[in-house]
Amino acid sequence: MNQDMNQDMIQEIKQLLQEQYQGSFYEYISQFHPYDIATNLNELKHEEKLQLISLVPIQLGAAILEYLEPDLQYEILDGVTESLTSSLLNEMSSDTIVNLLLSIHPHQTKKLSQLLPYDYREKINTLMNYEPNTAGRLASVDYIAARINWTVDQALQHIRKVGQDAEMISCIYVVGNRGELVGVVSLKDIILAKSGTTLGEIIQGDTISVSVSMHQKEAADVLSKYDFVAIPVVDQDNRMIGIITVDDLIDVIHEEATEDIQKLGGSQPLEEPYFKNSVWGVFRKRIGWLLILFVAEAYTGNVLRHYEDTLNEVISLAFFIPLLIGTGGNSGTQTVTTLIRALAVGEVEFKDIFKVMKQEIATGIFLGLAMGLVAFIRAEFLGVGFDIGSVVAITAIFIVIWSSTVASVLPLVLHKLKVDPAVVSGPFIATFVDGTGLIIYFTIAKVILGL
Amino acid sequence: MNQDMNQDMIQEIKQLLQEQYQGSFYEYISQFHPYDIATNLNELKHEEKLQLISLVPIQLGAAILEYLEPDLQYEILDGVTESLTSSLLNEMSSDTIVNLLLSIHPHQTKKLSQLLPYDYREKINTLMNYEPNTAGRLASVDYIAARINWTVDQALQHIRKVGQDAEMISCIYVVGNRGELVGVVSLKDIILAKSGTTLGEIIQGDTISVSVSMHQKEAADVLSKYDFVAIPVVDQDNRMIGIITVDDLIDVIHEEATEDIQKLGGSQPLEEPYFKNSVWGVFRKRIGWLLILFVAEAYTGNVLRHYEDTLNEVISLAFFIPLLIGTGGNSGTQTVTTLIRALAVGEVEFKDIFKVMKQEIATGIFLGLAMGLVAFIRAEFLGVGFDIGSVVAITAIFIVIWSSTVASVLPLVLHKLKVDPAVVSGPFIATFVDGTGLIIYFTIAKVILGL
Repeated sequence: MNQDMNQDMIQEIKQLLQEQYQGSFYEYISQFHPYDIATNLNELKHEEKLQLISLVPIQLGAAILEYLEPDLQYEILDGVTESLTSSLLNEMSSDTIVNLLLSIHPHQTKKLSQLLPYDYREKINTLMNYEPNTAGRLASVDYIAARINWTVDQALQHIRKVGQDAEMISCIYVVGNRGELVGVVSLKDIILAKSGTTLGEIIQGDTISVSVSMHQKEAADVLSKYDFVAIPVVDQDNRMIGIITVDDLIDVIHEEATEDIQKLGGSQPLEEPYFKNSVWGVFRKRIGWLLILFVAEAYTGNVLRHYEDTLNEVISLAFFIPLLIGTGGNSGTQTVTTLIRALAVGEVEFKDIFKVMKQEIATGIFLGLAMGLVAFIRAEFLGVGFDIGSVVAITAIFIVIWSSTVASVLPLVLHKLKVDPAVVSGPFIATFVDGTGLIIYFTIAKVILGL
Repeated sequence: MNQDMNQDMIQEIKQLLQEQYQGSFYEYISQFHPYDIATNLNELKHEEKLQLISLVPIQLGAAILEYLEPDLQYEILDGVTESLTSSLLNEMSSDTIVNLLLSIHPHQTKKLSQLLPYDYREKINTLMNYEPNTAGRLASVDYIAARINWTVDQALQHIRKVGQDAEMISCIYVVGNRGELVGVVSLKDIILAKSGTTLGEIIQGDTISVSVSMHQKEAADVLSKYDFVAIPVVDQDNRMIGIITVDDLIDVIHEEATEDIQKLGGSQPLEEPYFKNSVWGVFRKRIGWLLILFVAEAYTGNVLRHYEDTLNEVISLAFFIPLLIGTGGNSGTQTVTTLIRALAVGEVEFKDIFKVMKQEIATGIFLGLAMGLVAFIRAEFLGVGFDIGSVVAITAIFIVIWSSTVASVLPLVLHKLKVDPAVVSGPFIATFVDGTGLIIYFTIAKVILGL
């Protein structure tokens, strides 16, 4: 829906809520997808929000809640009648409830938890206890379990009975007596099988599952590699804990890419959407790396003071300092970002280090030669003479090759050492190349100019 | 599967293929997921690959092919008997075939196309004609269509009949007489509905579809917002062309994030996985931005020459050039990467520009003050005296605030002008801040030192 449609919808909803005629209200609202209703909910007043959720069927109300942020979910669940809250919680998926209960104030958590049936509350508590960013924390218990000796007809009957509460019914999970995961049967296979076939005959033998303690990023990788729509989560005894559905893992893929991008920008990742962060919060995420890079960069001062006499003698060497170290930083940044992404998506591993170095250094040589040529032309334009022009050109060649080499080795080595390679951000490589680049520059200058 | 398991599997497969006993071979291979077989296929010799695909049931063979790269798909389809090729193509999903036919040599395309039934070949040709990176190009025609007046029982019977060839059966698409998309019915609703219910009674009124010409990135956004497992693709007359399934859009999400990251690294995105790019190909993707940044950075030379007398008089000012412009570049990079990502995931829009500026400049002021303090301390350690220390500290404050301001405005303005904001990469901001930062530095120096 576009901006105008959203505005129209909000106005129409406000109008219909004032008229207080449930029939026409529901008729209007039911033509929209719950996501679109959720997106516009924040434009309504507190009372209008509560009125809307109270007027629609429980299932639609719960579906709208699924798309809201935890604070808004709580605002509504806390505002409507206790029996409605209870019914809505019952319809919502368990992973949404876990996320909600962990995002609000502990005394609010307690208040809401008490409205859950005892058994369900226990399950929710277990899920809440898994570490953040693990598969366990994302798991939903709203899946359909079956037994291996059931016929497809029995399974279908079971699905018809419990399917309404399940988050998805495309896969049915076959579990044993101790709750251990035996295999997966797809609804497609159940529907397509001849009547009387047992689940054992159509079960997929190659059950892929993830462990509760697996990092959510890895779980997302497994799901995208195998093209699944959901993946079962098991504990260390292979007992079925829940499932993670593809929509939750798409959110994980987005989140992880955002984190990687922010790290590459030389900052600790923000944990919240952009506008949810306070100035102070953003400050804290950025100041650390800014200080580390400052300290690392500071030695450029020592390098320059070391070459003070050379500089004093040929002041025009200073003109090219930003240009040369900037070019080195830029070419290093190109290499490092490409490699960090290639590592993140699994296209490159440590064992490829020589292949990577060969490719990057070869590219670096060509880039260096090209940049050396333009650097020489630039120096001539500034009118600093052939000698200094040669120093600048040769430095450009060596700086680009040097930065390509460093940028190709560092991410792979860090990855091998289990350090997140995204910490070698562009700014990090640029800083590293600045100091070493100056040493290259002045060494070449002293040799060529005979200082 | 881990590395050892993969090695074991390859050895066992090679062994079993030599024994040429189909029964035990199939028994062994069927315990693996087609993805895992596909991953290891490249370790086999050409003949072994063909033997493997010939020995397994057509469905498994086609499932393995789905996970392979086009060149490997062609190697196999071209190597086995013509009748097997034909059967495999028939089982493969249409989006995979489109991708294959577009990735191989035209005369190979022609050869394979001729093995497709006439009707199907026409459909594939239509899909192949959509622009690259559009929803149309990703669409698969292997979906299940139904009529609005069918009962759920009739629909289920139809699914049982045609479901085997469908890419997914979780959603059934109701189409009208002209092939126009009328609505979507989920298999869940069909299964859960009472016998005799018509599809018209359970159809979802809020059908969300994407147009054939929509960019794949937008289609992926729609799918992730609504949490769908598939999305229908329609032409300008709302006629149903096909569906895009969530696994294909996950690939798109990965691809688009990779492109954004490479652009942020100041390079044109590579279109192929890392090792598929030649040195020359990578060179061409990188040299353009490197040259543009070089030219942009070159004016730092003019700025420094302009202040040559000042520099000559107080050579120690040169010591802090890399440190100050580096810090400005780093803080600008932090801001710009955060904002480009926030724009990409839709957390921030142009209309938020003043809110963004307020947040970034406020953060910039605090970061600037902190960096000013450490810059002063650093200057004292280098022993350059109070006056120059003050110049360095005040410059640090202004440079950080200046770079935060530029970095907060530029991405939003470019986004508004429909220019991809990812072109304002970290290197771009750093380059921009280098020159302007030097002007700030020398202006402050001249005022404070009274030169």
